Amino acid sequence: MDLLKQRILKDGHVKPGNVLKVDSFLNHQIDVALMDAIGAEFKRLYGDAPITKILTIEASGIAVACMVAQHFNVPVVFAKKTQSINLDGESYTTKVESFTHRRTYDVILSKKFLNKEDHVLLIDDFLANGCALLGLVDIVKNAGATIEGAGIVIEKGFQEGGAKIRGQGIRVESLAIIKSMGDNVVEFQE
Amino acid sequence: MDLLKQRILKDGHVKPGNVLKVDSFLNHQIDVALMDAIGAEFKRLYGDAPITKILTIEASGIAVACMVAQHFNVPVVFAKKTQSINLDGESYTTKVESFTHRRTYDVILSKKFLNKEDHVLLIDDFLANGCALLGLVDIVKNAGATIEGAGIVIEKGFQEGGAKIRGQGIRVESLAIIKSMGDNVVEFQE
Repeated sequence: MDLLKQRILKDGHVKPGNVLKVDSFLNHQIDVALMDAIGAEFKRLYGDAPITKILTIEASGIAVACMVAQHFNVPVVFAKKTQSINLDGESYTTKVESFTHRRTYDVILSKKFLNKEDHVLLIDDFLANGCALLGLVDIVKNAGATIEGAGIVIEKGFQEGGAKIRGQGIRVESLAIIKSMGDNVVEFQE
Repeated sequence: MDLLKQRILKDGHVKPGNVLKVDSFLNHQIDVALMDAIGAEFKRLYGDAPITKILTIEASGIAVACMVAQHFNVPVVFAKKTQSINLDGESYTTKVESFTHRRTYDVILSKKFLNKEDHVLLIDDFLANGCALLGLVDIVKNAGATIEGAGIVIEKGFQEGGAKIRGQGIRVESLAIIKSMGDNVVEFQE
C-alpha cells in the first residue's frame, strides 16, 4: 500500500533493537484518515470472505480494527491483556510474549463474543515475532471459529512471525513488509 | 442520547460493586455503528469549538476517540498506561487510580503530540470517580494546551467524578448519565 509506505518513509524512525517508531500516525498519535484508507484496503483484499467479526488485541490494534470494521459492517472484539474484575464468566485465555515490553501477558476474551459460527479477520498494527497474532489464532481455535485471515499494517519481514503464521496455512495480508532497516533507512519487500 | 440509553437498557448488566457491564457494545466487543453515532453526537455538541486534537486513554477510550475524530477530521492521541521502551524522549506523566482494576497506573504521553497551540477534546467511555479524566486534564495543563471540554459516553452521576471536573470549570458532555442502578435496573438522569 503506497500511501502507507510513503508515510513510513516520511515519519517513521528506526531505533536500536529493531524498533520502528511510527507513533506519530499509528500507535500513539493516530491519523484517522490513514486508518480509514487502511480499512478500505483490507476490505479490498478480504471483500469476498464471509467475515462476521474483527478480532484484535489491545491497545494499539483497536484503532485499526475499528476503522476496518466500518468497511465490513461487523463488530470488533478486542482481547484484553490483563485480568479485569469486569470480565466475569468464562473466557478464552492464552499467553502472549511482548517484543516491545519484554514480558509475558495473559490475554483473555469473553466466550460471549466469539463462537464456532464466526468467521474472523485478525487485525493488528505490527507483525514481528508473531506472538500476539499466534495468541489470537489460539483464541479463535479455542472458540472453534473460522480464521479467514490476518490483516497487518506493518510486517517486519526479517523476523519470523509471518512465516510462522503462513506456515499454519493462514492467509496473511500485510500492507507494508519491511525487508530490512537500520540507520534510519527502511527498505520494503516487493 | 436516546439510541445509547436504549442500548444500555437492552444490553447493559449491573454487577456488584457499582459495575455496569456494557462489554457487548462499548468496551470489549465494539458496535462500530453505534460508536459512529456517538461521534456524530459529540460533533453536534462541540461543533463550534476549534478542536485540533482528540485525547483519550488506553484501552477502551481508543475506539470511541477514533470514531469521534473522524467527525472532527483531527488526530487522536492516546495516553499510555505503562512505560514502554518505544517511548523515548520527553513525556508528560501523571498517575491515575483505576476504579475497575483497583490499582494506580503511570500514564504517559509523548510531548511531541500535544503542545500549547492545541485545543483538546477529552474522550472516554466512562466517567465515575473521575481519576482517568483528571489524569488527562493534568496532562493537557502540563502541555499548556486548551481544554475545550470532555465527551463521555456513560457517566455515573451518583459518583463524584462529574462534579470534580465541572467544578474546575471544564465543560463535560455525557451522552448517558446514570442516576442510580441496582438489581439490573438502570435509571438515567434527565
